[in-house]
Amino acid sequence: MFITFEGIENCGKSTQSKLLYEWLLDNGYSVILTREPGGTPSAEEIRDFLLKNREEHFPPFSEVCLYIAARGFHVKNLIKPELSKGNVVICDRFSDSTIAYQGYGRGLPIDLIKRMDEQAREGIKPDITFLIDIPVEESFKRLKEKEKDRIESESVEFHEKVRNGFLAIAKEEPERVKVIDGIKPIEEIFKEILTVVMEKLQCP
Amino acid sequence: MFITFEGIENCGKSTQSKLLYEWLLDNGYSVILTREPGGTPSAEEIRDFLLKNREEHFPPFSEVCLYIAARGFHVKNLIKPELSKGNVVICDRFSDSTIAYQGYGRGLPIDLIKRMDEQAREGIKPDITFLIDIPVEESFKRLKEKEKDRIESESVEFHEKVRNGFLAIAKEEPERVKVIDGIKPIEEIFKEILTVVMEKLQCP
Ligand SMILES: Nc1ncnc2c1ncn2[C@@H]1O[C@H](COP(=O)(O)OP(=O)(O)OP(=O)(O)O)[C@@H](O)[C@H]1O
Ligand SMILES: Nc1ncnc2c1ncn2[C@@H]1O[C@H](COP(=O)(O)OP(=O)(O)OP(=O)(O)O)[C@@H](O)[C@H]1O
Ligand SMILES: [Mg+2]
Ligand SMILES: [Mg+2]
Repeated sequence: MFITFEGIENCGKSTQSKLLYEWLLDNGYSVILTREPGGTPSAEEIRDFLLKNREEHFPPFSEVCLYIAARGFHVKNLIKPELSKGNVVICDRFSDSTIAYQGYGRGLPIDLIKRMDEQAREGIKPDITFLIDIPVEESFKRLKEKEKDRIESESVEFHEKVRNGFLAIAKEEPERVKVIDGIKPIEEIFKEILTVVMEKLQCP
Repeated sequence: MFITFEGIENCGKSTQSKLLYEWLLDNGYSVILTREPGGTPSAEEIRDFLLKNREEHFPPFSEVCLYIAARGFHVKNLIKPELSKGNVVICDRFSDSTIAYQGYGRGLPIDLIKRMDEQAREGIKPDITFLIDIPVEESFKRLKEKEKDRIESESVEFHEKVRNGFLAIAKEEPERVKVIDGIKPIEEIFKEILTVVMEKLQCP
């Protein structure tokens, strides 16, 4: 069982994926929690490269290539091996983020990104994806006063495009992608998520 | 004027590109010599990542993504600006290496690599490409006793596929790609190269 969490910054992906991970662990499931970009040593190196603010202009297509390169390492060396042992894998961001940010957000050709992503995924695909949806305003409100990374420094308009991108993906694949109202309290959201996961674990 | 040098390891790309660079410089041309992967700070970081031997399995598609990501930085931040100033740019390896190594060598879909490469090139294309062709046996003979990097450690069969890939590209684009017999002495090869370059510089 492969479960991913998606949505714009501060929607609650890390909060909810951790709650789910701990619940499954406490209830006797073999489960790992991982994230993208990252998840293996090489993929984490690429993550650092991606998030670092840099002097040089960062071409959008180089950005998508790096996300997909990191995914390749992650799928091959962590996700696939774990799934084939029968373990549950929870991943904080995955393919939909690439399509939403680089496709809808930056305007790169979505069909090309999908083909690249397909190569990196080597045939695996999430069984359930939770899209935690919040307005961009709420995302900015939750952003603590800290040094913003390269992606967080983008404009409101950019994040609007990304949010709409996620919603478009959910519309295309309603079976896989469950849209969750991220404005609700953390515990309430978690209950919704758990209901969906338990249903799927019982009748896969 | 954008000139690239291609061919398998030890065919003489660096030797000939340096000779051409120095000749053009001595004869009053504004010229830069650069290489791939690399050429800008970010692209050189990706180069180090690519060439380093690593524990983790390196998925071939991640490899192609990283080469293309580095090219994006190189084109945007060095090659295009130099060309638009009217300078000659000489590049040691470029797109054809990606198609030959990752497409023909590793067997990844060539049409996909070409689409990715097109995005990274942002409309630029070499005016002349010198494919310095040598047998794989000669390439191995020239390899000095040193610690081999990740690519040099590949098998003879892999390098045969790459060599044939380069020759296939030359056949597809005979106008752009000049095949040079790399077994000849260095000075003789250089004379051939200079003849082609001077012709093109005089009647572009
Ligand atoms: N349902 C919620 N209501 C209010 N605040 C929330 C809710 N869920 C999470 N938060 C808070 O919002 C902030 C961001 O949450 P979290 O780190 O889980 O988001 P994220 O989606 O992982 O963000 P990022 O994309 O930056 O990793 C945290 O301070 C968290 O406590
Ligand atoms: N025409 C030639 N005949 C014999 N030896 C040559 C010739 N050209 C280059 N060499 C020698 O072969 C070795 C490799 O040459 P060079 O570094 O130019 O190759 P390269 O194509 O840049 O290799 P790499 O792909 O590893 O960068 C050097 O020792 C060089 O002196
Ligand atoms: Mg998070
Ligand atoms: Mg060289």
